[in-house]
Amino acid sequence: MPADPLSSALLPAGLHDVLPPEAAHEAAAVERLLADFTAHGYQRVKPPLVEFEDNLLSGSGAAMAKQTFRLMDPLSQRMMAVRADITPQIARIATTRLKNESRPLRLCYSGQVLRVKGSQLRPERQFTQVGVELIGPLEAEADAEVILLAAHALEGVGVQHLSVDLCVPTMVPLVCRGLGLAEEEMARLRAALDRKDAAAVAAVGGPAAALLQTLMTASGPAERAMQVLASLPLPEEAEKDRRRLTDALRLLRAARPDLVITVDLVEHRGFEYQTGLSFTLFARDVRGELGAGGRYRAGGRAGEEEQGEPATGFTLYMDTLLRAVPAPAAKKRVYVPHGTSWAAAGKLRAEGWVTVVGLAPAADPAEEARRLGCGHRLADGAVTALE
Amino acid sequence: MPADPLSSALLPAGLHDVLPPEAAHEAAAVERLLADFTAHGYQRVKPPLVEFEDNLLSGSGAAMAKQTFRLMDPLSQRMMAVRADITPQIARIATTRLKNESRPLRLCYSGQVLRVKGSQLRPERQFTQVGVELIGPLEAEADAEVILLAAHALEGVGVQHLSVDLCVPTMVPLVCRGLGLAEEEMARLRAALDRKDAAAVAAVGGPAAALLQTLMTASGPAERAMQVLASLPLPEEAEKDRRRLTDALRLLRAARPDLVITVDLVEHRGFEYQTGLSFTLFARDVRGELGAGGRYRAGGRAGEEEQGEPATGFTLYMDTLLRAVPAPAAKKRVYVPHGTSWAAAGKLRAEGWVTVVGLAPAADPAEEARRLGCGHRLADGAVTALE
Repeated sequence: MPADPLSSALLPAGLHDVLPPEAAHEAAAVERLLADFTAHGYQRVKPPLVEFEDNLLSGSGAAMAKQTFRLMDPLSQRMMAVRADITPQIARIATTRLKNESRPLRLCYSGQVLRVKGSQLRPERQFTQVGVELIGPLEAEADAEVILLAAHALEGVGVQHLSVDLCVPTMVPLVCRGLGLAEEEMARLRAALDRKDAAAVAAVGGPAAALLQTLMTASGPAERAMQVLASLPLPEEAEKDRRRLTDALRLLRAARPDLVITVDLVEHRGFEYQTGLSFTLFARDVRGELGAGGRYRAGGRAGEEEQGEPATGFTLYMDTLLRAVPAPAAKKRVYVPHGTSWAAAGKLRAEGWVTVVGLAPAADPAEEARRLGCGHRLADGAVTALE
Repeated sequence: MPADPLSSALLPAGLHDVLPPEAAHEAAAVERLLADFTAHGYQRVKPPLVEFEDNLLSGSGAAMAKQTFRLMDPLSQRMMAVRADITPQIARIATTRLKNESRPLRLCYSGQVLRVKGSQLRPERQFTQVGVELIGPLEAEADAEVILLAAHALEGVGVQHLSVDLCVPTMVPLVCRGLGLAEEEMARLRAALDRKDAAAVAAVGGPAAALLQTLMTASGPAERAMQVLASLPLPEEAEKDRRRLTDALRLLRAARPDLVITVDLVEHRGFEYQTGLSFTLFARDVRGELGAGGRYRAGGRAGEEEQGEPATGFTLYMDTLLRAVPAPAAKKRVYVPHGTSWAAAGKLRAEGWVTVVGLAPAADPAEEARRLGCGHRLADGAVTALE
């Protein structure tokens, strides 16, 4: 939505009215995504906008604590929080109310989230989140399923030139630990890797320097990155991550040899609560991420996340996504003059028209039709196009 | 949703997780309603969950002030409010951002609202609201259009035995004023009418007593009520309300002779910000209102509502509505064993199946299919029903 001065005077920063035709466009895309998730066996759930703060911000939800609005509940006298992310709610549902359902448990959702502050890249404070969670399975097949589903659903709503960027945010820490680096060294190294600063990595990397420089430079197209990774003398601790990446890529390639897949071996930002294979979804020429996802543990208590159930999933951000989706063709509007029978207008709707009924006689029906945004009008029982 | 002890321990009172299959059921009904509104020329808008308090609670929004949660905005240092009703937001959009669009302006919406407290009849504190607003026209044709649309959309999602209860909440005050009653007498009379207490109406009604008793007893099936109303010696001030009711009913009957319509000539509760013909939607044997609507003024400042634009519309409450709508048939789920190609599963989805893919080999595929809630499984390239 382009910001206009009137809107910004009326609404708090980062909050917007979505107007015609964008609101219909968004709703249609959301429902098509959900229909695709449903066809893949994911069942829809709808958690509330607000929960008790200590539930919503425990476990994987803790990452959003600073971004979350609080409300006092006058009934319970306890603090509530307005969700800033839906994923922790789905994890809660899976591990409490649906804990006795068969695994793998496949759930999907859409809804609004609210954040205290926007970022520079994304000033919005309210988003539509749409996503899936696959709870229970440890297998690489689960990682492949959610990535393939994300790609299928995005392409289904018209996203072109999609690319999937795989990463394993746990790999660098495991490599460093395996090579005996101290926590302090790891933090400096982390900062250097985030800057993609090869010289700094060499300077502070100690015994891990050479390995991490190779991981950094090998990032790029999946097959090349995996070739480099395969030949590296990784410490035993990081072996599981390498194997998972290899297995998942093999499954992805078997299903979708055409999909553009890149691998970033040193990325971790935005994946703070991810516990394994993760991914980001992009469309060429579209600014920002369409969505992201990956491995986590569902339902672990704070500090004991590893006791949670294995899970993976993804969230799509509708604001970015809609920039990558062509607007649907507007349905044709026909002006139905005052006095036309209810049944006659209904017949036009049944034929696929949007009817715009005149509520009073019009001196010039063609002009009135035009004024109301109709390209056609009903006259003498027939639909005619306006000149 | 039936309350369960686990849920009530986890979530604040009046807030619920909507689980499978109810969440999908609700979403499908919402989209069918919106599709019908769209076919009638109503364009979708989506206002934000949160606005500045002084905007959201001005004009017709003031009625919800006590039911509205507040949040401090750290960016503007101003108070924001979480919407408790979407109608005032649509009125704001119509009279500000869309003020230069042609009238009549037809808008529709769906979204979540949050309330500080539930009522005894409706303990929920979060609702899905779905509705339309028709802004600009004064004509009875506009009243008829929104009522016919509500009926059409509700019947379209499967509501049976629908009834529309018409009322004109302005009529009793106009009658009383026309007959010279003081404000204090009117308040006592109002209480007596709300109790449907004929004896009290006679005792406190003064010069209006006989007329109001007749209005009270005439309420019921529309044609009979209108016959009584037509013969009453109403004061001049109430004449406009009588004429509007008569005109609207004539238009409704011309379009839908079969529709069950009742008229309540003394009702006003729940219509505090309505300025004329109003209505409530019920389904026989379903507890509570499916929705309600009526005349108001859009965009008038506090205390100057009469300067706003003429408008009418309605809001449907999905929680009540879903009790009146049959659940859709579940789509058939087919278990697709581990190792099946991505393309083969896609072919099944294209044929209308919900595919549930095995993420690991299963010792007994039929048993595994059953465990995952599938009635069918893919075996040797063909779908077979489980016994």
